Amino acid sequence: MPRSTSPGAFRIHASNLQRRIDRLAEVATTRLAYSEEDIRGRQLAMEMMREVGLVVSVDAAGNILGRRAGSRNLPPILFGSHIDTVREAGRFDGVLGVVAAIECVAVLQATDLLTLHPLEVVIFANEEGQNFGALCGSRAAVGDISSEDLQRSDASGRTLSDAIRGVGGKPEELESSIYADGRFCAFVELHIEQGGELDRLGIPIGAVEGISGIQHTDVLISGIANHSGTTTMEARHDALAAAAELILVVREMALQLHSCRVANVGRLVVSPNSVNIVPGSVELTVELRDMQATRIARTMEAIKRRTEDIGERYGVSFEFLDRKFMEPVPAHPAVLAAIEESCQALQFPFQRIPSGAGHDAQMMARIAPMGMIFVPSVGGISHSSKEFTEAEDCARGAEVLLETILRLDRLPDEAAIGVAYS
Amino acid sequence: MPRSTSPGAFRIHASNLQRRIDRLAEVATTRLAYSEEDIRGRQLAMEMMREVGLVVSVDAAGNILGRRAGSRNLPPILFGSHIDTVREAGRFDGVLGVVAAIECVAVLQATDLLTLHPLEVVIFANEEGQNFGALCGSRAAVGDISSEDLQRSDASGRTLSDAIRGVGGKPEELESSIYADGRFCAFVELHIEQGGELDRLGIPIGAVEGISGIQHTDVLISGIANHSGTTTMEARHDALAAAAELILVVREMALQLHSCRVANVGRLVVSPNSVNIVPGSVELTVELRDMQATRIARTMEAIKRRTEDIGERYGVSFEFLDRKFMEPVPAHPAVLAAIEESCQALQFPFQRIPSGAGHDAQMMARIAPMGMIFVPSVGGISHSSKEFTEAEDCARGAEVLLETILRLDRLPDEAAIGVAYS
Repeated sequence: MPRSTSPGAFRIHASNLQRRIDRLAEVATTRLAYSEEDIRGRQLAMEMMREVGLVVSVDAAGNILGRRAGSRNLPPILFGSHIDTVREAGRFDGVLGVVAAIECVAVLQATDLLTLHPLEVVIFANEEGQNFGALCGSRAAVGDISSEDLQRSDASGRTLSDAIRGVGGKPEELESSIYADGRFCAFVELHIEQGGELDRLGIPIGAVEGISGIQHTDVLISGIANHSGTTTMEARHDALAAAAELILVVREMALQLHSCRVANVGRLVVSPNSVNIVPGSVELTVELRDMQATRIARTMEAIKRRTEDIGERYGVSFEFLDRKFMEPVPAHPAVLAAIEESCQALQFPFQRIPSGAGHDAQMMARIAPMGMIFVPSVGGISHSSKEFTEAEDCARGAEVLLETILRLDRLPDEAAIGVAYS
Repeated sequence: MPRSTSPGAFRIHASNLQRRIDRLAEVATTRLAYSEEDIRGRQLAMEMMREVGLVVSVDAAGNILGRRAGSRNLPPILFGSHIDTVREAGRFDGVLGVVAAIECVAVLQATDLLTLHPLEVVIFANEEGQNFGALCGSRAAVGDISSEDLQRSDASGRTLSDAIRGVGGKPEELESSIYADGRFCAFVELHIEQGGELDRLGIPIGAVEGISGIQHTDVLISGIANHSGTTTMEARHDALAAAAELILVVREMALQLHSCRVANVGRLVVSPNSVNIVPGSVELTVELRDMQATRIARTMEAIKRRTEDIGERYGVSFEFLDRKFMEPVPAHPAVLAAIEESCQALQFPFQRIPSGAGHDAQMMARIAPMGMIFVPSVGGISHSSKEFTEAEDCARGAEVLLETILRLDRLPDEAAIGVAYS
């Protein structure tokens, strides 16, 4: 058991990782899920997987799996990410987690190390959701895609079912091939942070405490549209001025009161939106994110209470429609512990950090103990060609991934994870 | 000279006015300028004018003029308004000023009273500007429509030139038939207030001190669009939150600081306007209105100064583009005095009031001493089928109009107006 006594024995070379990242970027920088570019990227990734000895298959949902045998008859450890991108994407989002997983296997292969558990590298289909919504592949894998969803069409008229078939999936077999709870020993995903916290703090590794819950609430503010020249200030029922107060309350909740981690008003539409008419109504969406559902709920309640006074002062009414709620998904304590112990063993500074963005890991958490490793995004920039992570940080992240897998593999009692999880 | 000694000798009967208002409403409630409905309304109005003995003509710009001779060779007194409407309009905007003018002539006709000055009733074409911009007819009359403007097309592809020809105007003769300064002794327009001040105060007559100046300034607020889940509150450059502060500053300027009469942010567009993206930029327009150009300028300067602090606190930049400035147009002192003396003589309570909306009167002010009379709009509602003015208030407005015309006609020295004006 070399790993338990000599952490860092398996070095991941930054240049090897970068070469793999470059090869995928050469296919195309925009690889929208299910597109020709995505398919070419997937073919290249499967080629890389086979090169390191993985036995490659595509599941019913179109996710790519590459298997390496273990020495015992145990559930496999699953790790990986995605390679589909947004439009005009960067080179690291998703890709890093996939190439690092392949590189981990390459290192094990080169040293002939056989783990107790089988290992499976996964490339989830359509994480970005530029068509058909986000996390398509991982949602389908855990049974969260309905037959109705499969019949939905994208802008070009192609159904999700056809798109999945186009990348080698078998939509008709989806239902019978859902990943069962317990099928995997654990799921670990390495990903760039996308936010700027690690970069700002100068810390190379984020041990992800979980994926933030998200509340979207639509707000309709109804005042009275009126002539901006003939309506005195006192006689106005200005929906936009009332909205302005609400926007500042939402910001204050997260920034000054720390009532939830982040809060956003990103969408706002004014009606009639005319220079010389007092705004009659405003529609906007409040988004709250936090690791605790109760904090989200309490914050939204506080915001609603604050609008009572605003409504009275501006002579407008507020209506709220709670549109979407995604529960926070905490990392599994045993996987989080393995990640943190790996950082300590490798002597990499690390920090617990929530994931503000959604990831396939949150779907995998439904059927397996889940953990995520973050590396710094320079300037917090993502979903942009300016997205960048230092080569050394990529390599450190991959080393933590490998160390974590080996620690999970050698946990004294394999069942311990399952117990803590259930 | 019966008028100078017995004010109120000429009564305007509310029912007569209402009958004329009803007849025009029966044509159609939506009479967009130059449309078939507008043309039918114009034909009916010309019929009414001829019934009271006016000699009707259509000028080069498509404005309808109805002349009644005076006893001396003097410049005519011009009075009237418009009958074109916005979509789904009320019954009073514009129409009241026209039917009251016709009714004034009817009363003079019935009593055989001949004024010293000729009288001209005018119906301006396309005041509302639903096509080709507002105040088209009055602008053309004073030479404020260019040959380029004439070639502009509306949504249906028809040029302004064709539209003017369609109502009997002669666009090719526009240039040679501009109303010369001094052509008219004075211009007086009766109109509904459209705002709610007179209604709120319970005062039947507004002596309009002038038409407010208008400043439109576009503001571009540039922050940084970013992922709403991964960007901490401290790291945001939120253009919409900064816009919210600006909106409240603009409102405060007019409402609390009385720095200008009214201020409005009626148009605002967020980019990229997505629920889960911190707003990267916001475009909005600030509108200020006041009777004093210096107050408008000082208020806009104060707003710009306030954005320096906002920009710093939110990490965003502000750019300003002063887009349109319309000078305030004060009523002519002699015409305003005639209106106020008429109210006193008729024992109607009145109040000086600025016009927040634009009117043909502001164009006529370029070539003649101008004054306006307002009557209350119930609830300040206008440009709506709910627009309403009490029949008695309409009649009082018409009596003030007639009394004002007779007072202007009998001013001891006719030249006094011209002198005060120049």
